[in-house]
Amino acid sequence: MPYRAPVSEFRFVLDQIVGLQQVAETALFAEATPDTVEAILSEAGKLSETVLAPLNRAGDKFPARLENGVVRTSPGFAEGFRAIAEGGWVGISANPEHGGMGLPMAVTTAVNEMMGSACLALQLNPLLTQGQIEALEHHASPEIQALYIPRLISGEWTGTMNLTEPQAGSDVGALRSRAEPNGDGTYAVSGQKIYISWGDNDFAENICHLVLARLPDAAPGTRGISLFMVPKFLPNPDGSLGARNSLSVVSLEHKMGLHGSPTAVMQFDGAKGWLIGEEHKGMAAMFTMMNNARLGVGVQGVSVAEAALQQALAYAQDRKQGKTPLGATSIIDHADVRRMLGVMKAETFSARAIALACAVAIDMARATGSTDWQARAALLTPIAKAFGTDIGHEVAHLGVQVHGGMGFIEETGAAQFSRDVRVTSIYEGTNGIQAMDLVGRKMMDGGEAAYRLLQEIEDHARNSRANLPDLAGDVWAAAEALREATEWLVAQSADDRNAGAVAYLRAFARVLGGHYHLKAALADAARLPLARIAIRRLLPEHAALLAQLREGAADLYALTPEALAS
Amino acid sequence: MPYRAPVSEFRFVLDQIVGLQQVAETALFAEATPDTVEAILSEAGKLSETVLAPLNRAGDKFPARLENGVVRTSPGFAEGFRAIAEGGWVGISANPEHGGMGLPMAVTTAVNEMMGSACLALQLNPLLTQGQIEALEHHASPEIQALYIPRLISGEWTGTMNLTEPQAGSDVGALRSRAEPNGDGTYAVSGQKIYISWGDNDFAENICHLVLARLPDAAPGTRGISLFMVPKFLPNPDGSLGARNSLSVVSLEHKMGLHGSPTAVMQFDGAKGWLIGEEHKGMAAMFTMMNNARLGVGVQGVSVAEAALQQALAYAQDRKQGKTPLGATSIIDHADVRRMLGVMKAETFSARAIALACAVAIDMARATGSTDWQARAALLTPIAKAFGTDIGHEVAHLGVQVHGGMGFIEETGAAQFSRDVRVTSIYEGTNGIQAMDLVGRKMMDGGEAAYRLLQEIEDHARNSRANLPDLAGDVWAAAEALREATEWLVAQSADDRNAGAVAYLRAFARVLGGHYHLKAALADAARLPLARIAIRRLLPEHAALLAQLREGAADLYALTPEALAS
Repeated sequence: MPYRAPVSEFRFVLDQIVGLQQVAETALFAEATPDTVEAILSEAGKLSETVLAPLNRAGDKFPARLENGVVRTSPGFAEGFRAIAEGGWVGISANPEHGGMGLPMAVTTAVNEMMGSACLALQLNPLLTQGQIEALEHHASPEIQALYIPRLISGEWTGTMNLTEPQAGSDVGALRSRAEPNGDGTYAVSGQKIYISWGDNDFAENICHLVLARLPDAAPGTRGISLFMVPKFLPNPDGSLGARNSLSVVSLEHKMGLHGSPTAVMQFDGAKGWLIGEEHKGMAAMFTMMNNARLGVGVQGVSVAEAALQQALAYAQDRKQGKTPLGATSIIDHADVRRMLGVMKAETFSARAIALACAVAIDMARATGSTDWQARAALLTPIAKAFGTDIGHEVAHLGVQVHGGMGFIEETGAAQFSRDVRVTSIYEGTNGIQAMDLVGRKMMDGGEAAYRLLQEIEDHARNSRANLPDLAGDVWAAAEALREATEWLVAQSADDRNAGAVAYLRAFARVLGGHYHLKAALADAARLPLARIAIRRLLPEHAALLAQLREGAADLYALTPEALAS
Repeated sequence: MPYRAPVSEFRFVLDQIVGLQQVAETALFAEATPDTVEAILSEAGKLSETVLAPLNRAGDKFPARLENGVVRTSPGFAEGFRAIAEGGWVGISANPEHGGMGLPMAVTTAVNEMMGSACLALQLNPLLTQGQIEALEHHASPEIQALYIPRLISGEWTGTMNLTEPQAGSDVGALRSRAEPNGDGTYAVSGQKIYISWGDNDFAENICHLVLARLPDAAPGTRGISLFMVPKFLPNPDGSLGARNSLSVVSLEHKMGLHGSPTAVMQFDGAKGWLIGEEHKGMAAMFTMMNNARLGVGVQGVSVAEAALQQALAYAQDRKQGKTPLGATSIIDHADVRRMLGVMKAETFSARAIALACAVAIDMARATGSTDWQARAALLTPIAKAFGTDIGHEVAHLGVQVHGGMGFIEETGAAQFSRDVRVTSIYEGTNGIQAMDLVGRKMMDGGEAAYRLLQEIEDHARNSRANLPDLAGDVWAAAEALREATEWLVAQSADDRNAGAVAYLRAFARVLGGHYHLKAALADAARLPLARIAIRRLLPEHAALLAQLREGAADLYALTPEALAS
């Protein structure tokens, strides 16, 4: 069934749950008035429904392919990308001085979710370019900014991230690509990069590769990495394109899903590049790009969850099978199907609210410079990424299940959601890496940012007891259990933290989800049944997760590879 | 990496966990001595490793296809099937009087698991034929048995099940296919059937379709359904083949996985058929076939889990990335990777033990006629099916995750496991249907069979307290919680039961898994770390599941389709 953009749902979450108002009250985002946000969401929703959604199946059936070194994209993708760029959606959060709309990340997040629901493989392209624009805004010279950003915003050029090498995946510090000074301020970049999403395409005039590489005098590990802009065609100062750079697409991967997005092996052979940011500080610059890309990937999970939910719901209403006490025979009236749909809806709401809360924190940090908001954004980013993508998988999985036998048939589209979303738990840092980020780097404040957030949740629950005593009590108790677990966590060794990292992250997401559902039920009584599903059925998982956390690493290391193999 | 048959693991579970000895002590299965079982498992393991496993990728890359009405199977499948049949593996549990080996279902289950690990798409073919043989043994006339069963065992012919129609999926009673008496004792069968696995192939001389259809005077619903044998070619009494029957393959489905298994739409146009069993009693006959097929499909989940675990373990040992306190840099030494592998191993063990316990119960029921064993088998069958296939999915999912980016690349094979196993949660009755069977039909004894099993688990835990106090205590407490939940469950309405059915089934599997891991740790101290993972990390989920159960159906039905859509 055709995708329908959930514009009013975004309005509800933005206004009632995550507090977009406070963002609009800052000077930086004063233009994000309710009317503007409404207009933006409607417009992006229309594009997603009418232009992008019809491309999704073609992207799957006719993958991008490599012909004589040139990537040929899926049918309709060029037109779809053109429509995205012309709508201004690449530059929605970019600085207006380069042609961006300067809107809050919270709005961009909603827009990205809709485009991703409609056609995830194509949406990944502007998502990457958005990240590149942000990295350039923060780290590039004014000349580079002026040359690149307007063309990335307009869609004339597109951007990629080149981190991974065959021996350097999660361990980026192991990368070997080299950059030699050319003596004229530019560098000759050489090396092979893998898993380069949208490493090439046939609809942009230029492909702008941000490449991590080592200078000759670089230290080993992550401290010896620098960032370079390495364009496919060398631009003249006026933006016209000169010679072809010494880089090529070696091959495209044959993937489980996301076929419309070409995943390239890139070869750089002394390609001309420009240093972005300082020498040896490439990781810092890349982290700017990655942090928001992590939120963006988490949102991709929400995208798929929403689309899979819509399709499963339509199928469950349409499909007749058996009889129930309600008299009707659509499968939606069977308790277990209703349960699956309810879980899908509740989880999608939670993941979306977490993502938008993270986006609001990013906006507030940017608009106010508040370190508290910075810490909040940093804390929520790995949760938004890992939980959003896990939920994307789980909801798509349930979506297939609701379809029964039809779910396994590719023509239905349910299977594609399940295949496409699978990579989101892996790229931009696997969900395990996200969890380790949460229990490691994000707890270097001794848990302060976590405690502050949990205090807000507990205060809200306490204040809600008069209205919804049982739900508020459950949320309060879960937040308190999480606080105690956090106190335990920050006192543990890195190994013990890491052993429980995935469980801890999910427990945190469960508490956040319960909190947001409680808020929703208080704001709109019609949302009470969904909140009950989230809080009474899903939230209790936190206890099992925290039990896992407290097991630490000892048992895991006692389980030898020999015992695993026998 | 190449599949390695876990023969010694089967021996451990069969001998130490599920008690194959008692089966071998019955007169019926006296030949299932340890030496015979060892020889059988080794031989089937060798076939799986050397002949079947090499076919798995080809089945995915070169799907079965329909050419001018004839199904062309994947490269090598004909030879693979021939090797299976020549090994006697189709008739391993079939009655020796028709050429079967007459071995216990517990042994067949282990053999089927190995063949499924090696090549799931091909293994489905003999699995279906095994089910057909059993249905014929129970319900067909001696003439039909003598004509069909030896040829099904030899692999000259293969068998299919034809239940589903476009309007009749989970609701089999809605089927419309008709059978008119021809006046000579045969029937003219007409109708369209969908999702017919291995509906045709190019390596068997004849395809024997068991078809559900209605006689002219049939009552509506499931009480008006009869079962017919409708062969592709009409056999002469001597087994030679006569005319082509009036049936055809209309099309093959384009599926998410299991590409090597042709899933057909079958058209029967007055095809000649023979009644199997009594008129209007087709469902009973079909249930014979389906019950064991349900166990067989549960085992397919275990097959994929084992294969995915082996591959992920090999990758994790081989792949170098980062540094750890252990000094090594293979990713298996990272706590979160070790956790994933430990969970994969623990879950695979639990699912396998449940399947083999179910098989032992089937064997004991058959060998002794004991109604207690019958009830045990009936209780365990839906758990083995749903939990086995859910675990197959979850372990394959983790297997992809362990591979990181490589997991999303098809060449690795990890993605194929994930895609192939997906259908097992759907076919042979969706896992939701299994759960409803557990809380409905299987609780019509007021929970007696469940209580008897839980009593054994509690007794064992109590007797284990001296040796492993904390693990035994956890298992005892979980079994007791499940007993209380069962007491609650049997007093509820069908709607409330069904609303919690999936959660209840999984909680039951969690308790069973904890029980079997406790037994394993007591029998072999080297298994203690794995048992700790299962009992301390995974078993606690039962509490969250039982909390879900007790929510009943009210909230689900309060969640209107409008609320789901908005």
